[in-house]
Amino acid sequence: MNLTNLTNLTLPAIAPLSDTALTQRLQHKLDNKTKPLGSLGRLESLALQLGEILGSETPELRAPQLVVFAGDHGLAARGVSAFPSDVTWQMVENFLAGGACVSVLARQHGLALTVVDCGVRHDFAPREQLLVRKVAPGTADASAGPAMTPEQCHQALRNGMALLKALPGNAFLPGEMGIGNTSAASLLLARLARLDISDCTGAGTGLDSAAIARKLTVLREVLLKHPEAKAPLDVLAAFGGFEMATMVGAVLQAAAERRVIVVDGFIASSAVLVASMLAPHVLQRCIFAHRSGERGHALMLAHLKAEPLLDLGLRLGEGSGAVLAWPLLQSACAVLREMASFESAGVSQKDA
Amino acid sequence: MNLTNLTNLTLPAIAPLSDTALTQRLQHKLDNKTKPLGSLGRLESLALQLGEILGSETPELRAPQLVVFAGDHGLAARGVSAFPSDVTWQMVENFLAGGACVSVLARQHGLALTVVDCGVRHDFAPREQLLVRKVAPGTADASAGPAMTPEQCHQALRNGMALLKALPGNAFLPGEMGIGNTSAASLLLARLARLDISDCTGAGTGLDSAAIARKLTVLREVLLKHPEAKAPLDVLAAFGGFEMATMVGAVLQAAAERRVIVVDGFIASSAVLVASMLAPHVLQRCIFAHRSGERGHALMLAHLKAEPLLDLGLRLGEGSGAVLAWPLLQSACAVLREMASFESAGVSQKDA
Repeated sequence: MNLTNLTNLTLPAIAPLSDTALTQRLQHKLDNKTKPLGSLGRLESLALQLGEILGSETPELRAPQLVVFAGDHGLAARGVSAFPSDVTWQMVENFLAGGACVSVLARQHGLALTVVDCGVRHDFAPREQLLVRKVAPGTADASAGPAMTPEQCHQALRNGMALLKALPGNAFLPGEMGIGNTSAASLLLARLARLDISDCTGAGTGLDSAAIARKLTVLREVLLKHPEAKAPLDVLAAFGGFEMATMVGAVLQAAAERRVIVVDGFIASSAVLVASMLAPHVLQRCIFAHRSGERGHALMLAHLKAEPLLDLGLRLGEGSGAVLAWPLLQSACAVLREMASFESAGVSQKDA
Repeated sequence: MNLTNLTNLTLPAIAPLSDTALTQRLQHKLDNKTKPLGSLGRLESLALQLGEILGSETPELRAPQLVVFAGDHGLAARGVSAFPSDVTWQMVENFLAGGACVSVLARQHGLALTVVDCGVRHDFAPREQLLVRKVAPGTADASAGPAMTPEQCHQALRNGMALLKALPGNAFLPGEMGIGNTSAASLLLARLARLDISDCTGAGTGLDSAAIARKLTVLREVLLKHPEAKAPLDVLAAFGGFEMATMVGAVLQAAAERRVIVVDGFIASSAVLVASMLAPHVLQRCIFAHRSGERGHALMLAHLKAEPLLDLGLRLGEGSGAVLAWPLLQSACAVLREMASFESAGVSQKDA
């Protein structure tokens, strides 16, 4: 079975960004700003990429959308997390009440925050910022069978595409919440990048070394249970969470619409990994916000050839790292739009 | 001669921050926020330090002051920079007109911007955002004698203290502009940290390798010219710029007032190095914004045992790196002030 080829799912077409004339104009513009050549370092390559994604020499980020995808994991019953599964729905309430880290940071930066119940084991009262796109109340235990059926995987992907399509703006910051989802991300990374699971497995929400060893034993068992899962969507269905599959759909749709995708940590990157294997040009639209403190993320970034903006030892998820990096994207755009050129400011050039 | 001991200069007293009860309360508060323990990484140590500096469990940054200190360097006549000295005054005009990088970034973040003529070789028309505290029109050529006289050094220090004292707010972001000032900073670092000048010397505004070699030859010559300069203010007078000496005074005053000092790159760090040798507790008030791409800055940070927030290959100066890091400080304060605790949000704790 290869889910990717099933005919009941149509993935959006994602064309390469290949306007070399625009790239040259952007580079020329950056080089003529009143600063030594290249002296803004990584901010200049960021500005260039934002100009390319948005197709403009004066890129402007509009109505940025922070979307937190939440779901429960059957594998959590095997004790792979330091926290009980109930924390997933409790944190959804915390996001909506404005007390979670990412709620605080979204307020700081004026980002719209939407929470999506992709498959939480809880019934939520309706709320303005909450979208219920529940595929099922939690995935199945991946150590006993696939985490989701092909139909559930497709449903989650379609949910992600549809909900993203309905959101305004040209920038997308996906975050996530799901007790057990570092396990799922570790499994995806190990299988899709052909890495040893021990190199991909970390402390998650805060396991000690004995608990990490037990988690690793469970994850090895899960991998052995699914030797046939090799294609990206098969791997996603075997090991993933509904929040991750929904995020994959949303990332594909965002890339197709040429939105800027700000990639948070280990879980968000694993969704981007899957999406990029379905449509490699997704990566042209991705800004990697930070290198997480979670073991495995550095390997994942290296596999994706991604150069993250921040390296602050974050390992919270929720999209928190993406929001912390957000002002750097705004700065990069402002440099392109507002900084004077040597000519316009009457500043002398470098000595010949 | 030891300028530090001259009696016509009174430096402000800078007491240690040593309220261990406050530190414990801050740590307890961070540990009870709805997130895995320590999962905000560097942002948590930043929040702790901001709470300590501002003496509060709910620190709030008020009326942040970005001050760009500008001055010309006699040593520039020896060809140590890729740009002509006129660029110093031209960039001051650019700061005031709003077209320089740091002007753009200050607008983005709502920071008050003041430019100080500490010793530019140019007469400026009066402007609202411009303070004229000119010690002299540029320093003397340090390869021929000391860059400044003891009286000039003291005058610059006093100017810095006085101007900072008159500014509102509790956060200070010093920036600088001065063609030739990476040379001065390299000389300060080599002498004060007892490092080889070749390890402290880099491309500045963009020298090629042959020009760096010529710059290094000049800097070796300058060091040999001043074997007696060993105490911090003697070294500052022998090699420094008026913008750097004024910044040292401002940093000392800011530290005495328990303002948060956001340290930019190589030049700003060299002023902090001097200030910290006069009053070591200055460093408790310093947040190091970034590791610059300028050779020598990594060594300087290691010498100061500083862990910077960003590492983006910036090498522009002006305070640009400090402003890029600024939203992280606001985020750290917001986490302390606004995030819910496990108890207040009704979120389950980690499994026992």
